[in-house]
Amino acid sequence: MKEEKSFVKEITPQAEDFSRWYIDVIRKAELMDYTPVRGCIVFKPDGYELWERIQAGLDRRFKETGHRNAYFPMLIPESFFQKEKEHVEGFNPELPWVTEAGGEKLEERLALRPTSETIIGHMYAQWIQSYRDLPVLINQWANVFRWEKRTLPFLRTSEFLWQEGHTAHATEEEAREETMRILELYRDFVETEMAIPLYTGQKTPSEKFAGAVDTYSIEAMMKDGKALQAGTSHYLGQNFAKGFEIKFLDRDNQLKYVHTTSWGVSTRLIGALIMVHGDDRGLALPPRLAPIQVIMIPVGPPKFRDKVMARFDPLFDALKAAGVRVKSDLREETPGWKFNEWEMRGVPIRLELGPRDVDSNQCVLARRDTGEKITVSLDEAVERVQALLEEIQRNMYEKAKAFRDANSHLDVDTLEKLKAHIARCEETGELTGFILAGWCGSAACEAKVKEQTKFTSRNIPFDPPERKHTCIHCGGEAKHTVWFARAY
Amino acid sequence: MKEEKSFVKEITPQAEDFSRWYIDVIRKAELMDYTPVRGCIVFKPDGYELWERIQAGLDRRFKETGHRNAYFPMLIPESFFQKEKEHVEGFNPELPWVTEAGGEKLEERLALRPTSETIIGHMYAQWIQSYRDLPVLINQWANVFRWEKRTLPFLRTSEFLWQEGHTAHATEEEAREETMRILELYRDFVETEMAIPLYTGQKTPSEKFAGAVDTYSIEAMMKDGKALQAGTSHYLGQNFAKGFEIKFLDRDNQLKYVHTTSWGVSTRLIGALIMVHGDDRGLALPPRLAPIQVIMIPVGPPKFRDKVMARFDPLFDALKAAGVRVKSDLREETPGWKFNEWEMRGVPIRLELGPRDVDSNQCVLARRDTGEKITVSLDEAVERVQALLEEIQRNMYEKAKAFRDANSHLDVDTLEKLKAHIARCEETGELTGFILAGWCGSAACEAKVKEQTKFTSRNIPFDPPERKHTCIHCGGEAKHTVWFARAY
Repeated sequence: MKEEKSFVKEITPQAEDFSRWYIDVIRKAELMDYTPVRGCIVFKPDGYELWERIQAGLDRRFKETGHRNAYFPMLIPESFFQKEKEHVEGFNPELPWVTEAGGEKLEERLALRPTSETIIGHMYAQWIQSYRDLPVLINQWANVFRWEKRTLPFLRTSEFLWQEGHTAHATEEEAREETMRILELYRDFVETEMAIPLYTGQKTPSEKFAGAVDTYSIEAMMKDGKALQAGTSHYLGQNFAKGFEIKFLDRDNQLKYVHTTSWGVSTRLIGALIMVHGDDRGLALPPRLAPIQVIMIPVGPPKFRDKVMARFDPLFDALKAAGVRVKSDLREETPGWKFNEWEMRGVPIRLELGPRDVDSNQCVLARRDTGEKITVSLDEAVERVQALLEEIQRNMYEKAKAFRDANSHLDVDTLEKLKAHIARCEETGELTGFILAGWCGSAACEAKVKEQTKFTSRNIPFDPPERKHTCIHCGGEAKHTVWFARAY
Repeated sequence: MKEEKSFVKEITPQAEDFSRWYIDVIRKAELMDYTPVRGCIVFKPDGYELWERIQAGLDRRFKETGHRNAYFPMLIPESFFQKEKEHVEGFNPELPWVTEAGGEKLEERLALRPTSETIIGHMYAQWIQSYRDLPVLINQWANVFRWEKRTLPFLRTSEFLWQEGHTAHATEEEAREETMRILELYRDFVETEMAIPLYTGQKTPSEKFAGAVDTYSIEAMMKDGKALQAGTSHYLGQNFAKGFEIKFLDRDNQLKYVHTTSWGVSTRLIGALIMVHGDDRGLALPPRLAPIQVIMIPVGPPKFRDKVMARFDPLFDALKAAGVRVKSDLREETPGWKFNEWEMRGVPIRLELGPRDVDSNQCVLARRDTGEKITVSLDEAVERVQALLEEIQRNMYEKAKAFRDANSHLDVDTLEKLKAHIARCEETGELTGFILAGWCGSAACEAKVKEQTKFTSRNIPFDPPERKHTCIHCGGEAKHTVWFARAY
C-alpha cells in the first residue's frame, strides 16, 4: 500500500475494473489515505465516522446483552503464544515484534496483539476462582496487527481496528449459547443497520480460528461476486482454559476448566458497506448508518436566495428537531456540482428547495438508491423524509439481497460444473458468485476445490436453501451442504 | 508494576500511607489489575467505564467545537522523529521499537507512538494545499506508549489511553485561539463534570512539551498535597510545519507554513478523580461522572421483602425513567455489607427502603460525600434524588476547592521559607501543597528550586491570587508569578 498523491478525478466504472473502482471511491470520498507505514492506512474523518456509527450500534447491543468493556495490554509476551499450539501456528508468521524499549534490548520479545485470547486468558485465570465469578462477559475495542503480505484498505491492513469479545462460562452449553447469541447479534446489526444480507453458518475446520473448537461466520457477497467474511464468533472449548489454567470451583466442589468464547468484527465492515452498496457514482450509505441522512441544497438564481432561505432554514431546523441527521450545503459551487458531490459521498436523500418550490409550498426529495425524484408538500416534508429513509433502508437491503440471490448458484454442485461455470463467467463477464454444494467433510477435497478453482468454503449454512447429497469433489456422500466462493 | 494476586482486605488509611491507600482503593474497587507486561495494566470494567464517561463528555465537546475524529497508524518510522529536533530529544529515551515483523528484520525501526505530531504532520502536508483547506481540526482516541522507569497505575504506565487533538491553521492568531479554546474546554469539563478544581496557566519553557512554542496546562491538587498535570494544550508554532513541510497557498498567493496545535488528556484523569475525592472508605465519584448514581438496597427482615419490593420496583423504574443512572442490589448479603461495598465503590447516593419506610411512605437517602442520611417522601423521591445529585456534585467541587485553597500557600515565596515550610510539614504531617512565588525566568533558578526541594514549577497562572515581585531563588526581579509543587 504505497503512498500516492494522485487526485481521483473520475471513478473507474465497476464493470471495467472493480478493484480500481473500490480504491477510486474510497479515496474520492476521502474515507482513507495511504501512509508511509507499510500496510497501514489513515482512517480519515468521513471513514472513521462510519466506524463510530458501527461502534455505537454494536456497543449498545453488547451492553444490552450484559457485556462490559475493558482494556488489556497491547503487547503480549512471546511465551504466551506457546500455550495454545494451534494459536501460535496460526498467528506467528504475521506478528510484529517489539525487541527494544527505553534504550535497552528486551529479555523477551513482545508481540503487537493480533488478537487477545492469550493475555486475556492469563488475566481470567487470576480473576476466576468460583462458579460465582461466572460468566465473565467482556468486550474490548482496540487496534490489532497482522503483518499481511498483500494489503487492501479496510479489508486487510497491517493495523486495523476492531472489537473482540472474550467470555468465560461454567458449562459448554452456556458458552455455545453465547457463541450463537453473538452470531445472531452480528447478523441483526449488519442486516438491519448496514442493509447487508448475510449467509450465517459454521466454518469448516480448515477455515476456523486458530485455537477454536468451532467457528461461526457471517458472510456477505460483494458487487464483484466475491465473498467477504464480515464477522466471526468462536466456541473455544477448554483449549485456552487449559493453556492458561482458567479453573473454577463448581457448585459440586469440583475444580473445572471454564469454557470460553471469542468473537469479533472489524473495520472490514466499512469495506463491506462500500462494496455491497456502492455504484459507479460512488458510495451509497444505508440511512440507519449514514452519518448524514439528508443533504439540503438551495437551488435557483441567487437573487431569490433570501426568499428560499426563509423556508429553507425552518425546514432544516424541523428535520434536525425530528432527529434526522441533516446537513445543508450553502457553498458557492453550482447545484449540479453539489448534487454529484453528495451522490458520490452516498447521502441517502438530497433535498432541493428553489424559488418555484417555495411558491408551490413544496420541495424535491432525490433518492440516492433509485435516482427517483419526489415532490412533497413542505407541510409534510419531515414525515415524508422520515418515511423515505425507512423505505430506502428497506430497498437497499432488498436490492442487495436480490443481487446476492441472483448470484448464488444452487445447481453448480460438482467440480466439473464449477469449472464450466467459471469458464462461462470468464467469457460472458458474469460474476462467479457463491455456489452451494455438498461436501464429504475431508480437508483434502476442500483443498482440491480451492487449488483448482480458487473457491473456498465460506460456511455451512444452518438453513441451506436445499440439501446437497454428494461431495463436490469426490462425489462421496455429503456430510454437509456448504457455500463456496472466491473470497476477500 | 509486578503482578500481585493478593486480595485487598482493608484499605490503608490515607494518613498512614497515601500511596498504599491509592493502590488499595483501585484494586479493591476493581478498577485495574497488574499484568505480566512491564508497566502495563488492565483497565477492568469498572475502571474502563470511568474512561468511557470521560470520553463521552469530551467527545461531545470536541464535536460541538467543530472537531472530527480520525485514526492514524500507531507505528512511526524512526526517521520521522528526526524532523523536529526538540521532539526527538524529548521522546527518544522512552520509545519501544518494532524491529521485526512477519518473520523478517525491518529495514527501518518503527516506534510505538508516544504522541502523533510526526505522522499526523506528514499526512497534513499531503492534505493541505490552500487556505481553503484550513483549519484542519482533528482528534484521535488512541493507545500510546512511553517506556517510563517508574510506573504507577493510571498515572504513569508504559501503555495508556488518551485523546490527542491536532489542528492546523492559517495564522498564529487562529492557532493560539484554538490552543486556549481547548484549555478552557478541558477546564470546563474537569471542573464541571469531574468536580476537580484546577489552576490553569502556562508551563515554563523547561516544563513544556518537546517541540512546542508554548504549553498550557490544567493542574490539580491531590489529597496528599501533590500536583497532577491533568491536561495540556500546545501552541506548536511552525515547528512541525517546517519539519514536515506543511505549506499552503494563502489568499495573497504566498506559500506559507501553517501554524499547528496539539492537546491531550489521558487515563491519568482516572487517577486524579480517585486522589481528589477518595477517602478512607474508598472511592467517591461525582454524580455527573458516576456510572452508577444511585444504588437501591432493600432493608429489613426477609419476611417483609414482598411488601418492600412492591414499592421498590416502581421507584426503581421511576428513577430510571427520569434519566437517573440507578442500580439495585438484591443479592443475599446483609444490608451492612452492601452499604460498605457501595460506599467503597463511590456511588453518590444510597437509597434504602424497608418495611417501616413503606408504612410511612418514605425512603432514606444516604450521601456518600457527607455521610448524611435524609428521609424523603416516596411521592417526591425522584425529584429529591435529582436535586441531591446536583447538590452532591456542587459540594464535592466546593470541598475539593476548599482543600486545595487551604493547601495553597501564598506566603511561602523564598527558597528559605520553602525549606522551612517543608521542614515544618515533615514535623507536623501537614501537606506541602502548592506555593505561589515569583520567578525571574531563568531555567537555572527553576532547576535549583527543584534540586533543593523537589518542588517543580506547575504553571504560570493567568490570574494569580496575588502578584509576586522577586524571584524565589535569586531574589531578582520576578518576570512571572508561578505555582510550584511536588508533582506526580
